[in-house]
Amino acid sequence: MPEPTKAEYIVGVDLGGTKIMAGVFDARFQCVSRNKISTKPERGAEAIVKRIVRCVQDAVDEYDLSLKQIRGVGVGAPGAVDPDTGRVLFAPNLNWTNFPLKKALEKELTIPVFVENDCNASMLAVYEKELPSKPRHAIGIFVGTGIGGGIILDGKLYSGFNRTAGEIGHMVIEVGGPKCNCGNRGCFEALASRTAIFRKITSAVKDGQKTLLTEMLGGDLRELRSGDLRKAIRKGDKFVEKVVEEAAEYIGIGVANLINVFNPEVVALGGGVIDALEDEMMAIIVATAEDYALNGTMNGIQIVASKAADDACITGAAVLAHKMTKS
Amino acid sequence: MPEPTKAEYIVGVDLGGTKIMAGVFDARFQCVSRNKISTKPERGAEAIVKRIVRCVQDAVDEYDLSLKQIRGVGVGAPGAVDPDTGRVLFAPNLNWTNFPLKKALEKELTIPVFVENDCNASMLAVYEKELPSKPRHAIGIFVGTGIGGGIILDGKLYSGFNRTAGEIGHMVIEVGGPKCNCGNRGCFEALASRTAIFRKITSAVKDGQKTLLTEMLGGDLRELRSGDLRKAIRKGDKFVEKVVEEAAEYIGIGVANLINVFNPEVVALGGGVIDALEDEMMAIIVATAEDYALNGTMNGIQIVASKAADDACITGAAVLAHKMTKS
Repeated sequence: MPEPTKAEYIVGVDLGGTKIMAGVFDARFQCVSRNKISTKPERGAEAIVKRIVRCVQDAVDEYDLSLKQIRGVGVGAPGAVDPDTGRVLFAPNLNWTNFPLKKALEKELTIPVFVENDCNASMLAVYEKELPSKPRHAIGIFVGTGIGGGIILDGKLYSGFNRTAGEIGHMVIEVGGPKCNCGNRGCFEALASRTAIFRKITSAVKDGQKTLLTEMLGGDLRELRSGDLRKAIRKGDKFVEKVVEEAAEYIGIGVANLINVFNPEVVALGGGVIDALEDEMMAIIVATAEDYALNGTMNGIQIVASKAADDACITGAAVLAHKMTKS
Repeated sequence: MPEPTKAEYIVGVDLGGTKIMAGVFDARFQCVSRNKISTKPERGAEAIVKRIVRCVQDAVDEYDLSLKQIRGVGVGAPGAVDPDTGRVLFAPNLNWTNFPLKKALEKELTIPVFVENDCNASMLAVYEKELPSKPRHAIGIFVGTGIGGGIILDGKLYSGFNRTAGEIGHMVIEVGGPKCNCGNRGCFEALASRTAIFRKITSAVKDGQKTLLTEMLGGDLRELRSGDLRKAIRKGDKFVEKVVEEAAEYIGIGVANLINVFNPEVVALGGGVIDALEDEMMAIIVATAEDYALNGTMNGIQIVASKAADDACITGAAVLAHKMTKS
C-alpha cells in the first residue's frame, strides 16, 4: 500500500459524451488506478460535474489515497475548450456552451483542475510518452467513433482562434461522398471512422453479403466492435478485409492531406480502430500517404501507431495537470 | 527624381518557373519601379541567377537608383525554401535541389538577400498591407495556375519540418476526381485552379458547348485568361458562369477544410483567378465555407479577398527584406 508523504499523484479524466473515465497516475505517468461511469448528459451540467467528481473520488479511494494526496486533476473534454480559463466553449455532445468546468470542479474537489480538448490531451500523452525525440511539429489522428486530431506546433498544443483547430474528421476528402453526422457529405470521418466502417458492413450484410461477423455475433451486428473485424480478417474473411483496407486508404489520404498542409515531423495514429487493427491498417496507411503526399514533403517524416489506446486521454490529461502544477 | 541620402529602398523579387518579376519599394512598401523577364529555367541555375540579377538591376536603374541605395533584396521562390540559409531545397519548376540562392545572389549583387517560399512571401504582403488587426493566425490561399498557401501562425510564417507546409493545392478533396499535375487525382488545384477551370471549358467546347469565349477569342482558347471569363459572364454567358461557380464552390470547401483544421482568424484569398473574378466568386466561396465548416468553428472568422494581385509576391519579398535589414 502506498504511503506518500506529499501530494505526488495526478488524476486524468476523459470526459466523453457517453462515459467518464478517471485514472490516478504516479509521477512517471503510470496509471495505478482507474474508474469509469456513464456520463448521462441528459441530466444537465450540474449532474455531470457531480458524476466527474464521484468518478475521480472513487478512482482515488480505490488506491487508498485521499484527494489531499492529489496534486491536480486534468480533464480532456469534447469540443472547443479554452485551457486558460478552463471553460468548455462549445460541446454539442454534452449540450454545453461556455461552461466553466474548471471552476465547477475545483469548487467540489478543492484541488487545481485543468481542462483541455480531449484530442489535444490524447496528443499530449503521445508526445510525452511515445515521442522521445520531442519533434517540433507533430499531429495525432485518433480514429474511433469519429475522427479527431491533436496538433502540436513548435512543441506546444495548437488550438486556433476559436479553440476548434484539429477538427480533421470534418475535412472533406470526397465531395458528394457518404453523409456525415455533421450534416455534410464526404467528411474524413464519414469515410474512415468506426461508424463509417460499421455502416458499410451492415449495409452490405442487409444486401445479402456473407461474412463471418454474422456467425461470430449471432446475426446482431449492433454489438460489433473493432476487435471483431480483426478476428474476422484473421479467420480469412475477405469482405471485412476489403472494407478495412478501404478505410485504411482513406486514412492514408487524410494523413497525406495533413502532411501537405502542416508538414509535421511525426504523424501519430491512435484511437480504438487503429488500436484493434494496427497490423491490418498501418502498412496501407503509410503506403497511401506516400502516394498522395507531394514529392519532397515526406522526407524524414514518421507515421507511427500510438500504443496509448483507450488510456490516451486520461494519460494526456494527467500530463497536462502535471505540467501545470510543477513547481 | 529621388535623391536619397542612404539606402532606403528595398527590392522584392518574384521568381517563377516562367517569369521573374522585380519591384523597387520605398519605405512605405509602395512599388516605385518594376521589371519582368522570362526565367528560362532550361538554361540552368547559373543562368537563372544572372537573369534575376539583371532583372533587379534594370528595375533599380529605371528609377535612377544604384544598387548602393538598395538596403536589401527579398526573393519569393517556388517550392521548399529554408529562409535561415537562403537555400531553395526543392523546386521542381526550376529543376533545383538544395540550391544556395541567397549566397549566389549576394555574390553578384553585394547587398543582403533573403529568400522565402513564394506563397509565404505573398502571405507576408497580405498580412503587412491588408490585415491591420494583425491576427494571430491567418492563412492565404492563392488561386492561379495552381493553388498555393501561405500560413501565419502566432504572427509568424509557418513552413513545417521540410519547409513544404502550405501545399494546400494538393490536399485531396475529391477522391477519384480529375487528374492533377502531381500525378494524383482530386487535388484542390485539379478542381479549382485556373488550369482546372480552363480544362473544363476547353473540353466542353470540344464537345460542342456554345460560349461567348470562342467569339471573343476567335476560336483559339489557348489565349484564354481569367479576365475573359469575367467578361463572358458579364455579357450573360451562363455556361462560363456555371463553371466559375463550381470552382468557387470547390474553393469554399477548401477554405472550410482549412478552417476545420487550422481555425485561423482570417482566410485571405488571392491570386489571378480571385483577382479577376472576385465579384463572381467571393460570395459563393464564403457561403460554401459556412456550409462546410463545422458548427462553431467559423465564429468571428473573416474570409477576405486580397487586393495584392500580381504584386503580392514582390511586395511580400520586399516586406521580408525590410524586416531582416531593420536596425
